[in-house]
Amino acid sequence: MRIGLLQINPVVGDMAGNAALVEAAYARAAAAGAELALTPELALTGYPPRDLLLYQGFCRLAWAGAEALAARLEAAHPGGPALVLGCPEPNASGQGKQLYNAALWCEGGAVRRTIRKALLPTYDVFDEARYFEPGQAQDGGNVVEYRGRRLAVTICEDLWNDKDYWPHRLYPVDPVEAAVAGGAEALLNLSASPFSLRKQALRQDMLSAVAARRGLPLAYCNQVGGNDELVFDGRSAVHGPDGSVAARAAGFAEDVLVADLFGSVPGRLEQDGLDPSAEIWRALVLGTRDYLRKCGFTKALLGLSGGIDSAVVAAVAVEAIGAQNVLGVLMPSPWSSAGSIDDSLALAQNLGMATRTMPIEPLMQGFDAALSESFAALAPGQGPGTTEENIQSRIRGNLLMALSNKTGALLLTTGNKSELAVGYCTIYGDMSGGFALISDLRKTQVYALARHINAVKGQVIPENILVKAPSAELRPGQTDQDSLPPYDVLDAILALHLEKNQVAAEIVAAGFDAEVVARVCRLVKFAEFKRRQAAPGIKIAWRSFGSGWRMPLAAAPLP
Amino acid sequence: MRIGLLQINPVVGDMAGNAALVEAAYARAAAAGAELALTPELALTGYPPRDLLLYQGFCRLAWAGAEALAARLEAAHPGGPALVLGCPEPNASGQGKQLYNAALWCEGGAVRRTIRKALLPTYDVFDEARYFEPGQAQDGGNVVEYRGRRLAVTICEDLWNDKDYWPHRLYPVDPVEAAVAGGAEALLNLSASPFSLRKQALRQDMLSAVAARRGLPLAYCNQVGGNDELVFDGRSAVHGPDGSVAARAAGFAEDVLVADLFGSVPGRLEQDGLDPSAEIWRALVLGTRDYLRKCGFTKALLGLSGGIDSAVVAAVAVEAIGAQNVLGVLMPSPWSSAGSIDDSLALAQNLGMATRTMPIEPLMQGFDAALSESFAALAPGQGPGTTEENIQSRIRGNLLMALSNKTGALLLTTGNKSELAVGYCTIYGDMSGGFALISDLRKTQVYALARHINAVKGQVIPENILVKAPSAELRPGQTDQDSLPPYDVLDAILALHLEKNQVAAEIVAAGFDAEVVARVCRLVKFAEFKRRQAAPGIKIAWRSFGSGWRMPLAAAPLP
Repeated sequence: MRIGLLQINPVVGDMAGNAALVEAAYARAAAAGAELALTPELALTGYPPRDLLLYQGFCRLAWAGAEALAARLEAAHPGGPALVLGCPEPNASGQGKQLYNAALWCEGGAVRRTIRKALLPTYDVFDEARYFEPGQAQDGGNVVEYRGRRLAVTICEDLWNDKDYWPHRLYPVDPVEAAVAGGAEALLNLSASPFSLRKQALRQDMLSAVAARRGLPLAYCNQVGGNDELVFDGRSAVHGPDGSVAARAAGFAEDVLVADLFGSVPGRLEQDGLDPSAEIWRALVLGTRDYLRKCGFTKALLGLSGGIDSAVVAAVAVEAIGAQNVLGVLMPSPWSSAGSIDDSLALAQNLGMATRTMPIEPLMQGFDAALSESFAALAPGQGPGTTEENIQSRIRGNLLMALSNKTGALLLTTGNKSELAVGYCTIYGDMSGGFALISDLRKTQVYALARHINAVKGQVIPENILVKAPSAELRPGQTDQDSLPPYDVLDAILALHLEKNQVAAEIVAAGFDAEVVARVCRLVKFAEFKRRQAAPGIKIAWRSFGSGWRMPLAAAPLP
Repeated sequence: MRIGLLQINPVVGDMAGNAALVEAAYARAAAAGAELALTPELALTGYPPRDLLLYQGFCRLAWAGAEALAARLEAAHPGGPALVLGCPEPNASGQGKQLYNAALWCEGGAVRRTIRKALLPTYDVFDEARYFEPGQAQDGGNVVEYRGRRLAVTICEDLWNDKDYWPHRLYPVDPVEAAVAGGAEALLNLSASPFSLRKQALRQDMLSAVAARRGLPLAYCNQVGGNDELVFDGRSAVHGPDGSVAARAAGFAEDVLVADLFGSVPGRLEQDGLDPSAEIWRALVLGTRDYLRKCGFTKALLGLSGGIDSAVVAAVAVEAIGAQNVLGVLMPSPWSSAGSIDDSLALAQNLGMATRTMPIEPLMQGFDAALSESFAALAPGQGPGTTEENIQSRIRGNLLMALSNKTGALLLTTGNKSELAVGYCTIYGDMSGGFALISDLRKTQVYALARHINAVKGQVIPENILVKAPSAELRPGQTDQDSLPPYDVLDAILALHLEKNQVAAEIVAAGFDAEVVARVCRLVKFAEFKRRQAAPGIKIAWRSFGSGWRMPLAAAPLP
């Protein structure tokens, strides 16, 4: 039985547009001989629809859209392949959450059957228990008979609870066991599994293990594309009953993969590199391109400081939407080095993007004049310090936002995760912008990515940007390391504290200096208010700031 | 049996401080003859601890703190009342989430028993399924024998699922039924139930109904105080077996209520008004005071525009932390009316707070000069418009943040919910600030609150501020109603769309003009990016922006 995996890139909430994507992909699969077609999870609404699901008017429209799509497919392809379509299903039981996260078995022009997701991820960026009632994983309840075969339909997390694979299971039931008990001959999985670093290796290994353990072929259809902070990396696949990868769709791109589910015909196997910087590059480019497109922007702008962060952001933006659509803005102050300006101009020239230069010294003087009397009255004897540095940064934020407002280009903010973690950034200043695309990359990862970019795109980032000491250039001779531990130390501590959920004592036990650890953890805590007002970025790490980071503000520091 | 309800105001994450609050309240209760003491839900960590719970080092500390507290109480009060203490309990089963949301029965110097919350709210601002494994609501499993009585321990939501009370139940089980099956003679409830408008009437009615239906007395101990966006209103109570309120603690203040659980001794019954503006006033004052205190601020500042919003915010701030700790900043532009300045000065004088005045015209000219060439090049022929209005607002934001940075006073932002809903506000401009205390009040609610303030505090808000047409004063002669529908219409549409989850067609069916509804819903959708970067506010409505509002950004508009 040939199965078509419709790896589409939906827009959240755009049921008509997403149905059209499914139709087009279905037609391609049918033309390639597919007898059955599978979409990603919640394909009709796009994943994650989040609180749109709290609007019953929205959910009714999704259901009606599914029924209409089923009818249209039959009209265009009479007797064609069944479609297993991800769509929220209203819960008519009168108890519990209003919806199920369902797979709709569409055949002969109608929705014939629904299978409901049993395991609802409610951790990190996932909030499924907020919206959905779990389906019951009863023996055979997820098995559909189709053209002489017994096919088990599962949805994403349903496959992620094998008791032999996971040392710690999150759920007491396993829908795969229910499928096996029901005599399933193959496992189908509708998925919306977002990218994070090292996820694909885990995912492929886990899917292989489940297929091999059950001795069943497994077809896995993942969503692709950027939706806010999440980038879905596709890589839909068919595994053989021995666990081997029999066919794999493209990573980070739309695709339709048609492969034989039971037979021995070799499928198409897209190459799939797992080098961290290469993966990050693909994720950032796709995530940025989709965020702009799905928000209705065609142009972007950013401030170029001469540093590594803005250089990398510029390179991503140019790759995502083309150099002609990206503007770099130089806003030198008296503390800017000549190198910063030259390096920025060289970068822009290498990338082929336009620049504008607007010195900010007159505005700095204007703010000094406006504030000096108040400062003298309210804080007598205090000299210039962080306040004045922040003023510079906020002048630049105002200029950039003015250009954004005037031209309709989205302002990209350029801060990295190390800065955002410890608050080495100015709220309403350099944090201004609609999308913070490298805000989940630690500084050391930014450097590695820059080297990768230069390797694959030619030396677009000038060597000088790669080798100079990082500096905010907000006072004469300043460097980041005046205020922060060396980045390799800082980043290693942050990885343990932010991504492994370790408290200070555990990090010290791992071999770091107690005073440095205490200082870093304190900085992280007291920058929480900045992160609360930060622009969304692209999730790269296992655990990231953003929608999956829910820390209290008016709280005591962690121990 | 006399029971002490320890209505404390914990700081999230401050286990040592919260244990000290419990100890002090316990001592008061014991001195008043209590034989049993009850804390709020998760009293030792404060509620909601949010992602602090993902740190095992934090949870271990909480558990150790509970054991130490039990021992200290016994040492100080040998043979004293048992304490039922809210605290997270590690899940040692090796499966599922790492924690239970538990009540610890502390007696004789140790934790004798734990009872686990069975119903885990996962909606709106609540994320309990993210952290906790549910307890099992087995017959009698939540019943503790103590001094000859069978007492059922429940935690917050556990009481909120009576099948006769609720037309739509969220959970299939009811811990109260398990308690009754176990022969319970009274229901105890540890709660952290946040304030929202009309919640207290529902809560008291529901608790009465549960007590009366089961014919059991009910003791309910609620948390009090502001924790980030949530204000907990206290109002702990004892209900008799007929449902009547036998005793009630203070609203919006710490309290220890000691009352007879089974006897007929009348308890203390604090007066409790439910006038909406009066409740809002108490919630805002407590929420603002606690946010500042728990973040370590003693001073606040805000921009005074001469409008109703900043007037109300100033009045709340003065009530919360004292006039001597609040600074008002006037930043007139050429478009500011003389009335705005006079009204602001009169307001400040009435409230007894200091002001500073900083005209912004020179800075507006500075930005014009910095930007004119770029505007001419990038947007030829475009005249002044929203961009220039935003620049003014961002100049003010920069000045206010500079004063905040220099003086260590928290900047209060003054926007209301109507503005924030439709995006009638400038990101990084008037949205700048650490706390947006009226951001969950629609404009019409702000007016009603202003009249309430004048009624209870004397005419502190000048009449002129109450009667003039609302205006952002960002261009000559501007009023809000140039851009927006009349506020009574706008607010009514927003209430349906934001708080009743109605889509446009439903709102039109309720009698509103289709074109106006479509425009308002579109504005709400396209202001989502501003709300993503907004300061936290105080939750007042049933459904609010903030942590319980989780909308996608790069998404299609709702139907």
